[in-house]
Amino acid sequence: MARSTPSTRERIQEVALEMFARQGVQRTSLQDIANRLGITKPALYYHFSSRDDLVRSIVNPLIQEGEELVARHEQRDPVVVSELLEDYFDFHYRHREKLMLVLTELRILGEIESIDAALDWRRRLVGLVFGPEPTLDQAARAIMAFGGIQDCCLQLPDAPHQRLRTAAVDAALTVLGAAA
Amino acid sequence: MARSTPSTRERIQEVALEMFARQGVQRTSLQDIANRLGITKPALYYHFSSRDDLVRSIVNPLIQEGEELVARHEQRDPVVVSELLEDYFDFHYRHREKLMLVLTELRILGEIESIDAALDWRRRLVGLVFGPEPTLDQAARAIMAFGGIQDCCLQLPDAPHQRLRTAAVDAALTVLGAAA
Repeated sequence: MARSTPSTRERIQEVALEMFARQGVQRTSLQDIANRLGITKPALYYHFSSRDDLVRSIVNPLIQEGEELVARHEQRDPVVVSELLEDYFDFHYRHREKLMLVLTELRILGEIESIDAALDWRRRLVGLVFGPEPTLDQAARAIMAFGGIQDCCLQLPDAPHQRLRTAAVDAALTVLGAAA
Repeated sequence: MARSTPSTRERIQEVALEMFARQGVQRTSLQDIANRLGITKPALYYHFSSRDDLVRSIVNPLIQEGEELVARHEQRDPVVVSELLEDYFDFHYRHREKLMLVLTELRILGEIESIDAALDWRRRLVGLVFGPEPTLDQAARAIMAFGGIQDCCLQLPDAPHQRLRTAAVDAALTVLGAAA
């Protein structure tokens, strides 16, 4: 069967993400989301038991995909840093709206314990480039490279995709390469 | 007169910052803060008319100091990028606790309109290094350099201060220099 229209569950997630992004998670109730969709609150509860559950359903696949990205590169020998940075850019570019939600709602994520996963993920990325015991100089360069790729996706949303990708990955290679 | 003890106003700000950092602004009431200080709520209201007012009193001096830093370097001719980066590092290192509050409570800051100031500040920093019309490559490198210095202060809080300063500034110079 062709999957041409999103399921109710997906429509709820889309509208929720849009409302969360505009007015914040705390100020968006499940009732607000149901109203916008023109469905009843019980109909919404059928899919999500709470707002936290709904936030989790948006954020967790993101964490999962990030984990898989890191795990995929951890299995490569040798690690190809340029391809790691390209994949890392593509991940952040593709999900930049959800990532903005994650970053502006860190406390809510704190509640649902996703921050630990994200921090562990960053630690593993540093390890991929500089090994398990990076020097302070290497750690600073890795923070700058990976954080900078993320920031480019969030702060230059109107830049042409491929040109931004090249600019961000080249800059990250420069800062990493100097300490390699 | 020797100023050996903080004023009540300063004690309120200190305790508020600590509670905001631990449990979030939304979940910290003025009553909670008054209780922790062992003062009455009216005594607290004497100094701050609302929680927003209190948050603003913590955040605004930070914005102000950032503005002054940028303005000071804008007046130099020529701009000395290494000193700009050092001052930028020192500012973020000194205020890393408040900055963590700012970054994890972006939405609250959105309400009190500080984000625009911060974004304008970033734009001016890029201008200091690359002039008023940076290329996409230069913009990406500036985002990486300035964002990376900030991230180093927040993500490596236990690193020795001077070694972290050198590592972060050197990495930023590397990424900026390659596009200069």
